[in-house]
Amino acid sequence: MEGKIPKPTIKRLAVYYRCLENLIKSGKETVSSQELGTYLNIKASQVRKDLSYFGEFGKRGIGYQTRRLLDGIAEILGIKRTWNVCIVGAGNLGIALANYPGLSKGGYHVKVIFDNNPAKIGMKLQNGLIVEDLKNFEKVTKEKEIHIGVITVPAESAQQVADIMLSSGIKGIINFAPVKLSIPKKIPVEEIDISLTFRALSFQISTQKNQ
Amino acid sequence: MEGKIPKPTIKRLAVYYRCLENLIKSGKETVSSQELGTYLNIKASQVRKDLSYFGEFGKRGIGYQTRRLLDGIAEILGIKRTWNVCIVGAGNLGIALANYPGLSKGGYHVKVIFDNNPAKIGMKLQNGLIVEDLKNFEKVTKEKEIHIGVITVPAESAQQVADIMLSSGIKGIINFAPVKLSIPKKIPVEEIDISLTFRALSFQISTQKNQ
Repeated sequence: MEGKIPKPTIKRLAVYYRCLENLIKSGKETVSSQELGTYLNIKASQVRKDLSYFGEFGKRGIGYQTRRLLDGIAEILGIKRTWNVCIVGAGNLGIALANYPGLSKGGYHVKVIFDNNPAKIGMKLQNGLIVEDLKNFEKVTKEKEIHIGVITVPAESAQQVADIMLSSGIKGIINFAPVKLSIPKKIPVEEIDISLTFRALSFQISTQKNQ
Repeated sequence: MEGKIPKPTIKRLAVYYRCLENLIKSGKETVSSQELGTYLNIKASQVRKDLSYFGEFGKRGIGYQTRRLLDGIAEILGIKRTWNVCIVGAGNLGIALANYPGLSKGGYHVKVIFDNNPAKIGMKLQNGLIVEDLKNFEKVTKEKEIHIGVITVPAESAQQVADIMLSSGIKGIINFAPVKLSIPKKIPVEEIDISLTFRALSFQISTQKNQ
């Protein structure tokens, strides 16, 4: 069943999850589809449809039980388990991610960081990780049972790094390099292109002025 | 006219732009809507529709002139001009962004970084920037004519920082904090939630296994 959930719904499930965490923290035991819809800026009918994909139905006049819904989404999203992460590219961004507390809080544990620059190999990060030689990628990631590979190298090296990850059995890739990777469809990839986000924003600013 | 371009088209224009830069680098003078569509993984008809929003039409059998199309998109996206950027939150991520070469290459110049932690104020970054006291936000951002504010503080301080940005006349905000900000509609906001991206990826990995 899970395989049939549309991708936009998956993305929203992650947002529902964050919203529910906040609601539970503030002591709320139930929430209506209207309230969730307002929070996410989507229609209540869409909320009900999204949540029905995994068999969760609100009770008329009461809504959804926040804790139960959170647990259900957590299970679907694989949040209850932990994931081992490696980073390739020990530049500023790679190091920032390796030290980012939000990741380990979410169950994503950065177990190793690689670089091919001799000046960086052996360097010790704030959190105690040592930068490893990219040459040893397959051996080290197998030892540490890495699931997720994060690419924080420059655009021109990103495909080469992706190929190493693929041939070493990495299960999914997050790509920060501003380039479209060629990856077989069965390996999931998420892209975070910081420059594109700045462009989208500055376009909106330019547009506002013309309105 | 620009005000009417739908937001998904705007986001794609930024991707077309990147694609065209690569095509021009590789010596390509014309490109068809089919080729662009393949690159972006969308239909050729959608490409033609997107580009028609700003009056750009390909010639049958020849396609679009890459250089002319790049220049047209650059103008629409405000890429030809430069933007002054400030960052609030001199943690690992804020510092990584301040030093990120991809931003200045795109015309986004990080002119100042703020923090409210006395241990960080006065610290000098790799690129020579000094961490400023958040107390002086309005004065410093006016002096330096800052357009874009980037939030890299923890979730619990993000709204407070956004409020300072809004009252100081910042034109647009990029939020890395994992929280939904309350911002008046006329101020554009883009969110980059790194943890949500990891969740979306790990869900896809979990799903793959079940298929």
